[in-house]
Amino acid sequence: VRRFFMFRITKSEGVFFEKFEEAAEKVLECANLLFDLMTNYTDIGAKIKRIECLESDCDSYVHQTIEYLNKSFITPIDREDIFLIAKETDDVVDSIEAIAHRFAMYNVTSLRPEAIEFAALIPQSVEKLKDLMYEMKKMKKSKKISEIIIEINRLENVGDKMYRENMTKLFSEEDNAIEVVKWKSIYELIEKVLDNCEDVANIVEGVVMKHA
Amino acid sequence: VRRFFMFRITKSEGVFFEKFEEAAEKVLECANLLFDLMTNYTDIGAKIKRIECLESDCDSYVHQTIEYLNKSFITPIDREDIFLIAKETDDVVDSIEAIAHRFAMYNVTSLRPEAIEFAALIPQSVEKLKDLMYEMKKMKKSKKISEIIIEINRLENVGDKMYRENMTKLFSEEDNAIEVVKWKSIYELIEKVLDNCEDVANIVEGVVMKHA
Amino acid sequence: VRRFFMFRITKSEGVFFEKFEEAAEKVLECANLLFDLMTNYTDIGAKIKRIECLESDCDSYVHQTIEYLNKSFITPIDREDIFLIAKETDDVVDSIEAIAHRFAMYNVTSLRPEAIEFAALIPQSVEKLKDLMYEMKKMKKSKKISEIIIEINRLENVGDKMYRENMTKLFSEEDNAIEVVKWKSIYELIEKVLDNCEDVANIVEGVVMKHA
Repeated sequence: VRRFFMFRITKSEGVFFEKFEEAAEKVLECANLLFDLMTNYTDIGAKIKRIECLESDCDSYVHQTIEYLNKSFITPIDREDIFLIAKETDDVVDSIEAIAHRFAMYNVTSLRPEAIEFAALIPQSVEKLKDLMYEMKKMKKSKKISEIIIEINRLENVGDKMYRENMTKLFSEEDNAIEVVKWKSIYELIEKVLDNCEDVANIVEGVVMKHA
Repeated sequence: VRRFFMFRITKSEGVFFEKFEEAAEKVLECANLLFDLMTNYTDIGAKIKRIECLESDCDSYVHQTIEYLNKSFITPIDREDIFLIAKETDDVVDSIEAIAHRFAMYNVTSLRPEAIEFAALIPQSVEKLKDLMYEMKKMKKSKKISEIIIEINRLENVGDKMYRENMTKLFSEEDNAIEVVKWKSIYELIEKVLDNCEDVANIVEGVVMKHA
Repeated sequence: VRRFFMFRITKSEGVFFEKFEEAAEKVLECANLLFDLMTNYTDIGAKIKRIECLESDCDSYVHQTIEYLNKSFITPIDREDIFLIAKETDDVVDSIEAIAHRFAMYNVTSLRPEAIEFAALIPQSVEKLKDLMYEMKKMKKSKKISEIIIEINRLENVGDKMYRENMTKLFSEEDNAIEVVKWKSIYELIEKVLDNCEDVANIVEGVVMKHA
């Protein structure tokens, strides 16, 4: 399972990194759109539709990556890691889409300021995820890669704290049970996106260690 | 990890496919019972008990498959794929059982028509899953296999849409918060079963690609 | 992937088992603290902080194990199994911490007796998990190992039943929807911890089978 030879990437091997970069760009677009939806809370239906389209594009990249993986004899990093990075990146975008859908499904008419502040972490974390995907192919020489991973972990920790604060505020201030149900669910999903980003970062960290 | 020789299955290798077929038959029985429970909403306790028994039978097949896997030197498809197919099939039946239990746990006295329509997708998808298990052993020659996988994916998409429509209806029409909590949870589980079926189909798709 | 030689563990290979033991000790401390928090429901904030610290210690062990794994050429059991045991043990402690946080987040002022009875299964199951970690390195000769695994499975089944009973009681007796939301969520997490313990036990069972 381990690879001991020099880390030189051939053109066909490089395809994996390109797919990861393309997928990450789409995830970032999705994350930015979600934040735009939340800060400019109008035309919700149309904005959700655009997020759906981007999620579907991202799906295609993931599918192409796995298809390419199943046809490749040699891979630049372990097969399992390619599979996991593709799968977990897909989870990030799925969770972002899930949040967007909730605003329509739960018939949310106005946003809580603390929800917006919390969700602002999503584009920040996904931006770092995108940087990580671009650094991966030069991991042997990259000085930035561990900084990026630490930053994604830091954002997840900040998110954990905000998640708990928002929940505490929700349960101590909101009397309408249906509102509690809606926002509890949305907060859980925001926290999940940040977790998903950290999962990708942790897999990449493992890959870097193996090649160190 | 890859296998390059001709895809010929010996008798002992064939055991894996038989176990998958047997497990799938039990899952289908479970799915049909759940739908029967929902359409003939009487004797709930007895019907749940029967679903529990079938889930337990299905558990045994999964356990036998993994036990057999751990003792086998040669497998007809990658070890990880056998493990994943067994595990994800188990997830399908676990989620079906979980739905059945909810009707008792949540003290549900009458069913929503849209819930029944939504849940009708479960036996449809599991029926296809069973077909898939029977086609797997002849994957090299099977023309049906990709049709089946596409159909399972299509049913998951239909389910996604119905899930969102049912949720929107629930949150816009139901004033009783406890009813909202109950049905939100049931809808999430119905959607999960369809996701679980798609997960199995996607793993089989990967297996077919590797052997193409 | 399989190992056919005699099961003799070198000093450097033994590190994996030591890390599992150390992590399990921390998980048990966490489980006991959670139960103490629930039975002596005072100083909640301080008790949660201590659980957080222990969870963070446990995280370090898991991280060290995976780091060590990525640097090791030879491992006493399959690489995937080491990774999975580390990851699932982390899930146990994460779920325990999540329960503790909920008491503060949901502003829970008094505990239900049936919740305490249910949660009492957690230290019982984690105690067995710790025993399992100590038996793993002598798996060839251990007579206790299968007893322990059976006991963890039994506790999960008992938990499943209690989970359903507690939910039934909650939905039939509680009129306050927000209380229903809180306790539904806490019960789901208690059941999840017992599931996570069973997951670890099942992986170890697979490891034992491979080496039988």
